[in-house]
Amino acid sequence: MHYGEDRVYKTIEVIGVSGKGIEDAVQTALAKAHKTLERVSWFEVKEIHGHVGDDGLVSEYQVILKVSFQLK
Amino acid sequence: MHYGEDRVYKTIEVIGVSGKGIEDAVQTALAKAHKTLERVSWFEVKEIHGHVGDDGLVSEYQVILKVSFQLK
Amino acid sequence: MHYGEDRVYKTIEVIGVSGKGIEDAVQTALAKAHKTLERVSWFEVKEIHGHVGDDGLVSEYQVILKVSFQLK
Amino acid sequence: MHYGEDRVYKTIEVIGVSGKGIEDAVQTALAKAHKTLERVSWFEVKEIHGHVGDDGLVSEYQVILKVSFQLK
Amino acid sequence: MHYGEDRVYKTIEVIGVSGKGIEDAVQTALAKAHKTLERVSWFEVKEIHGHVGDDGLVSEYQVILKVSFQLK
Amino acid sequence: MHYGEDRVYKTIEVIGVSGKGIEDAVQTALAKAHKTLERVSWFEVKEIHGHVGDDGLVSEYQVILKVSFQLK
Amino acid sequence: MHYGEDRVYKTIEVIGVSGKGIEDAVQTALAKAHKTLERVSWFEVKEIHGHVGDDGLVSEYQVILKVSFQLK
Amino acid sequence: MHYGEDRVYKTIEVIGVSGKGIEDAVQTALAKAHKTLERVSWFEVKEIHGHVGDDGLVSEYQVILKVSFQLK
Amino acid sequence: MHYGEDRVYKTIEVIGVSGKGIEDAVQTALAKAHKTLERVSWFEVKEIHGHVGDDGLVSEYQVILKVSFQLK
Amino acid sequence: MHYGEDRVYKTIEVIGVSGKGIEDAVQTALAKAHKTLERVSWFEVKEIHGHVGDDGLVSEYQVILKVSFQLK
Amino acid sequence: MHYGEDRVYKTIEVIGVSGKGIEDAVQTALAKAHKTLERVSWFEVKEIHGHVGDDGLVSEYQVILKVSFQLK
Amino acid sequence: MHYGEDRVYKTIEVIGVSGKGIEDAVQTALAKAHKTLERVSWFEVKEIHGHVGDDGLVSEYQVILKVSFQLK
Repeated sequence: MHYGEDRVYKTIEVIGVSGKGIEDAVQTALAKAHKTLERVSWFEVKEIHGHVGDDGLVSEYQVILKVSFQLK
Repeated sequence: MHYGEDRVYKTIEVIGVSGKGIEDAVQTALAKAHKTLERVSWFEVKEIHGHVGDDGLVSEYQVILKVSFQLK
Repeated sequence: MHYGEDRVYKTIEVIGVSGKGIEDAVQTALAKAHKTLERVSWFEVKEIHGHVGDDGLVSEYQVILKVSFQLK
Repeated sequence: MHYGEDRVYKTIEVIGVSGKGIEDAVQTALAKAHKTLERVSWFEVKEIHGHVGDDGLVSEYQVILKVSFQLK
Repeated sequence: MHYGEDRVYKTIEVIGVSGKGIEDAVQTALAKAHKTLERVSWFEVKEIHGHVGDDGLVSEYQVILKVSFQLK
Repeated sequence: MHYGEDRVYKTIEVIGVSGKGIEDAVQTALAKAHKTLERVSWFEVKEIHGHVGDDGLVSEYQVILKVSFQLK
Repeated sequence: MHYGEDRVYKTIEVIGVSGKGIEDAVQTALAKAHKTLERVSWFEVKEIHGHVGDDGLVSEYQVILKVSFQLK
Repeated sequence: MHYGEDRVYKTIEVIGVSGKGIEDAVQTALAKAHKTLERVSWFEVKEIHGHVGDDGLVSEYQVILKVSFQLK
Repeated sequence: MHYGEDRVYKTIEVIGVSGKGIEDAVQTALAKAHKTLERVSWFEVKEIHGHVGDDGLVSEYQVILKVSFQLK
Repeated sequence: MHYGEDRVYKTIEVIGVSGKGIEDAVQTALAKAHKTLERVSWFEVKEIHGHVGDDGLVSEYQVILKVSFQLK
Repeated sequence: MHYGEDRVYKTIEVIGVSGKGIEDAVQTALAKAHKTLERVSWFEVKEIHGHVGDDGLVSEYQVILKVSFQLK
Repeated sequence: MHYGEDRVYKTIEVIGVSGKGIEDAVQTALAKAHKTLERVSWFEVKEIHGHVGDDGLVSEYQVILKVSFQLK
């Protein structure tokens, strides 16, 4: 890739869920995107949500991501 | 589904149009998404627009939705 | 198309990159979308970014667009 | 109207109030705009407020709209 | 109440859920607030979400409201 | 006015400028609106800007207001 | 209080109304919160609204505040 | 005009449409405003939209502007 | 709980503080809410702030959360 | 300065703190900027925060400003 | 530069003014930043404003940019 | 420092990059700011971005921070 040459990227929104933590939820979503999309280049964390169990502990993090990849 | 297990959802944006009302425009968009996507789980109304006829009456509602479904 | 009849549109987010300028970056993204999607109807410019070369000149514009088309 | 020809629209903000419901408040505002402005083309619902009576029931909906019409 | 005299209001956020529609979800939330808070004066709809059933139909609307009442 | 009866309000945006302070700038804008519009009911302060003189002191406040009045 | 030790704060939204001015409306809301909540620590002004009398003068300021206090 | 003297401006929202480009759409809207309003002072580009023709090319730009002018 | 049945939730805003990290600050806030509120269901991270010690290291994270629970 | 000639401004963010009031906090910040920057031209109030003393009175206002000045 | 290695960037806000057009205003701001800062890497257009001359034509564009560069 | 005494703070925007995680990226940015600015007091995380490697794993986190320090 050279700066200045014509390129097009697409951005999609995915939600990664993990019981382990915020960064694990990010990686869960990216692993899925990696399998179905040719080549993910970068992401942005848009929102961080979560569910609380009956014991008052975080049972899972739900991280909303924007994920971008080049259209070839 | 159990809270805490790894899952990934995708969110897309659709616009439902209906001459009958806001809730009908929501349902029109969801029916379309239901046919093409495996299983829509939830939605959010992002914007409500509309067109006005020559008689000054609402001729249609255009409702922008975010629609989410699980990637299996 | 008649106002008032049920229709559904989908909106996706793409990023057009061009070394020539903002409007050229918009057109680059739309040309790509036109090839892969049946019929793009309208777009909205959401963000305008760019890269700067070692000479302090804009080397490229990166324009984030929302692009909408009808689901048939 | 042909796409590509020069045109100018104006957008104003009005608030429609109705005791009957959200869509009725939209129509109340548009009917008023229709009488005083030549030709309203489209609208957007920006906010939905309301008042609550002593019995705990919604006594009225107050819907804030952006309304657009062509300047001829 | 006279304009200009010192008063204080409190605003809380509630979510009304209903299988019947948006306005019914608003009323469900206000009825609950009416029972526990002395006197609700006005509200604002902040977000409209919903759940979709296995049949692709809206199974419920979830409406996020800001509700205000005077502190006496 | 009774809650529940159909009414329509219009909201316009004005900027009041005053060398004396924020509240004086608000009042300057409202006095002007009062002369040209039948009956202003309420306002909202949207932004507060200002100019700084050569001595480093605020030379004026520029307050952007939304002003609403009933359409009769 | 020492930085680094576990603490929890709660933030509530109140609206102070005063015929005298913006800062008086802030203080009116805080005085009320001070009586009912153990110890208010800080606040943020979120919105400034007001009502206009028949003479075109500001009859009162309505200031929306976020107010925070420690949960002990 | 001297800084510090009382003045009032009004801001309106217009949409300029042009098949030639973004800056031409801005100028189209300003030319119209110039004819009907005494003296436009400044503007802000709020949104940039557009329509796409059957050939996948931008058929027109629709630029939403805020335009301000002094009330004398 | 069945989708479609009437329910009401309340959302409050709390700030969890921890010297250990972002997720620990979230859990600190939730533990407190769990003790005083019957049953917290979900949360959203709204803002992440922090304090820096004299050594230039993060001395604590302050995480602003929205926390929701059902009103029974 | 003539409109149309090339110029560049820089905008920085400062927080003015004062025990006397909002406008005094603005002036405190501008006086500081005036001493260290060549020539401040205009400002915008972005946020208004404050601290509350043990007596429930505002002990200080903290006003976040954007301040702009020309780069020569 | 290798992805994954520790780096720090700084982002500043500048306003470029030009009588020629939007892209010329961007370049005017970047040229100035290039002279005073070691190496500008990328930018984002945040707002586009302008001034209108007595003839109703755009006399200049004022483009607000965020500009980022690496701290070495 | 005593509440109520005049003070001025400055807020700047920095981006910390780390291959280890979100909190490490925060600390990387703060360490840099600590070396060049007299005394950083607090920060806010504004955005969390990242880059994805060819293996689909997060190669680095890029955290945008606002960092504040007192002007003496």
